[in-house]
Amino acid sequence: MSNPHRILVTNDDGMSAPGLKALVEVAQSLGEVIVVAPDSPQSGQGHAITISEPLRLYPVDTFGGIEAYECSGTPVDCVKLAKHVILKDRVVDLCVSGINHGSNASINIIYSGTLSAAMEASLEGITSIGFSLLDYSWGADFGAAQHYARQIMEHVLHNGMQGCQLLNVNFPRLSQEEIRGIKVCRHADARWRENFVEATDPRGQKYYWLTGEFVNDDLSDDTDIWALENGYVSVVPSGHDLTNYGAIPQLKSLEQISHPQKI
Amino acid sequence: MSNPHRILVTNDDGMSAPGLKALVEVAQSLGEVIVVAPDSPQSGQGHAITISEPLRLYPVDTFGGIEAYECSGTPVDCVKLAKHVILKDRVVDLCVSGINHGSNASINIIYSGTLSAAMEASLEGITSIGFSLLDYSWGADFGAAQHYARQIMEHVLHNGMQGCQLLNVNFPRLSQEEIRGIKVCRHADARWRENFVEATDPRGQKYYWLTGEFVNDDLSDDTDIWALENGYVSVVPSGHDLTNYGAIPQLKSLEQISHPQKI
Repeated sequence: MSNPHRILVTNDDGMSAPGLKALVEVAQSLGEVIVVAPDSPQSGQGHAITISEPLRLYPVDTFGGIEAYECSGTPVDCVKLAKHVILKDRVVDLCVSGINHGSNASINIIYSGTLSAAMEASLEGITSIGFSLLDYSWGADFGAAQHYARQIMEHVLHNGMQGCQLLNVNFPRLSQEEIRGIKVCRHADARWRENFVEATDPRGQKYYWLTGEFVNDDLSDDTDIWALENGYVSVVPSGHDLTNYGAIPQLKSLEQISHPQKI
Repeated sequence: MSNPHRILVTNDDGMSAPGLKALVEVAQSLGEVIVVAPDSPQSGQGHAITISEPLRLYPVDTFGGIEAYECSGTPVDCVKLAKHVILKDRVVDLCVSGINHGSNASINIIYSGTLSAAMEASLEGITSIGFSLLDYSWGADFGAAQHYARQIMEHVLHNGMQGCQLLNVNFPRLSQEEIRGIKVCRHADARWRENFVEATDPRGQKYYWLTGEFVNDDLSDDTDIWALENGYVSVVPSGHDLTNYGAIPQLKSLEQISHPQKI
């Protein structure tokens, strides 16, 4: 390739995750690759950043000749360090994050380090895609995911994303032959029904461990959960504006309490 | 009060933060208060949750007779534990988070532990408000913030939030007399221009420390940044849906690459 694309690859499962290796392979087939990943698993880190302590960055040779760095921080820290310490003036055409071991559909985007890393890159003006496979196992088969990830990345590199800077892509746990195609859709309005395992540690102290069940009451056929349950790859154009615009007019009444009496 | 409201109070600056004390005082004037706060500062934790280790929860008597617990996790962990371990069947009328030492306007909602705690409560179906004061100092004057926080909480307790479950409220660093009132507005499309301080530790190892400058090019008069710069308390009705709806039609072209050739 005479003018190859430059692609930044990151994740939240850490440098040794098979999903990262799978994504690096795809990126490598499309251009020059730079990898910046956490030095330990960072699942559930959301958009956390490290502000009260220093960050470390070490060059590693995990992917045989590909420029790669391990970072002591969160996935969002990785992207910030990549942009401002590693890349500096080198322009990146695309940032891809993942392939995550486990779903990041629907509300999971809020908790996900994988998607938060991609969102951070989009805030830096880099077109970004977060990829996740609905299989939590370390030995998951990333074959079909690689196939579709490559096609989506190629499409985005050639056509751009028309007013969007972030895609949330999830792959069903199916073979390439079983997958029915791609659906461009919205995030389902689903959530976690939480629970905690309560137990006692060897020193007799009580502890709690988060567990939970994913609940989806949003049953229309234009959501990512519907797409995944019906054998499609889900692609959700995403952003970072959390304003609830519909509620602004009704809540204008709050402006009337502007100058109340003192407490 | 014969039928007092029940209010859950949390924050991200930890149990000993003056901003938490200020908010507990306001909440106490409106009803029964339960406090669940982190045992250490958790600024910048975003929507991080603790999934790979256990959580601890200790009753404390920080606020003289008010039911209060310190939690070893993130602000979102605090809310999950509050709802499922502490409150259980006790219904809460309102969750308030803060008062944060420092702004959470605009894109800061994404990084903020304070707002993520409030958002988590809203996901649990609890009407929630995150409060922040544009003063990072530990000795900040919370007088005006308390005044407006009380009025807003009272209004929400009496009138509900009309199809919204989360408010992001920021107070300018002004006296009560200087504040011009309340503006209900949208999140400004601003962001951080990052930088890293690069230095060497006593063992000769290089480290990086995040710093940055807040940049706002979104200059219209309907944003939270405009409101705060012009002497108003900003109130942004907020949500959790990150779908970029406007981009869905244009990106439908991705569905055409559904069954490409194998790589």
